[in-house]
Amino acid sequence: MDFKSFIRDVPNFPKEGVIFKDITLLLQNPEMLKQTAEALAQLLNDQKIDKVVGMESRGFIFGPILASKLNAGFVPIRKPGKLPYTTLSETYDLEYGTDTLEIHIDSITKGDRVLIHDDVLATGGTASAACKLVEKLGGTIVQCNFLIELSFLEGVSKIADYQVKSLLTY
Amino acid sequence: MDFKSFIRDVPNFPKEGVIFKDITLLLQNPEMLKQTAEALAQLLNDQKIDKVVGMESRGFIFGPILASKLNAGFVPIRKPGKLPYTTLSETYDLEYGTDTLEIHIDSITKGDRVLIHDDVLATGGTASAACKLVEKLGGTIVQCNFLIELSFLEGVSKIADYQVKSLLTY
Repeated sequence: MDFKSFIRDVPNFPKEGVIFKDITLLLQNPEMLKQTAEALAQLLNDQKIDKVVGMESRGFIFGPILASKLNAGFVPIRKPGKLPYTTLSETYDLEYGTDTLEIHIDSITKGDRVLIHDDVLATGGTASAACKLVEKLGGTIVQCNFLIELSFLEGVSKIADYQVKSLLTY
Repeated sequence: MDFKSFIRDVPNFPKEGVIFKDITLLLQNPEMLKQTAEALAQLLNDQKIDKVVGMESRGFIFGPILASKLNAGFVPIRKPGKLPYTTLSETYDLEYGTDTLEIHIDSITKGDRVLIHDDVLATGGTASAACKLVEKLGGTIVQCNFLIELSFLEGVSKIADYQVKSLLTY
């Protein structure tokens, strides 16, 4: 399946000099939407998953489809102040400043086998924070999977303790 | 299916005096996640859909699953500055101030039959703006569907020109 022909390069987004990988042409194509979800699920190689954890906002797009395919539940990780119930937080460094992610404290049961999913693996800061949150709640990370890996940003090095798989690499 | 027993009331969120309907217990339950997606799809009553349009962020959770089930594409509507390609914008009134939503100009083909989906119908401002964006691009709104309708906020009145269906009403 030629997924890459449905990924559009948008130059200078979100800032000058960056070439953004736009996945919306793939999402709006009915056949590609299904094939992408199926291919992401196959990255698991039949490993059993209890919860799929997806990061706001674009991790919400394939995360719930994956959960549904894998007979798992879906758990959102969100920006501060967005989740209504009691949360656990993790703050991580950006190039300039810091960012924080939150997860509901009752979203992971001790021993849950977890798939971390996001659309893009860039510097790995978000994925690494997500893994820490899940582990603090007693979950086991089975895999981190991504639709797109921007390999030149070396995000894999930040989650080197886990199995990392990506459907497309640039 | 007793969906409501998986919806948690969180008092005083996001602000004092508001009782927030938290859907995360439903999402994290594998069987309920599937049953909810199936029940939302059934609200269409076999009407043909070309595109499911979901609003950032929580409309991304069931929107793509619905698209996949209905053999449709998924189109995200986002806050300003989030979509990378050329967008069309719609600004609408809030209780205090305004808000703006954006859609990619090439996301809807003239004549597309569209389902608008979001998790919650509150005042209807977001859904109404989404309908306008889709119609400006030449799409036909077949249905607006929601997981939860907060009927005391009378959001249906803002989208009275369309077929509106909700799985759960409070």
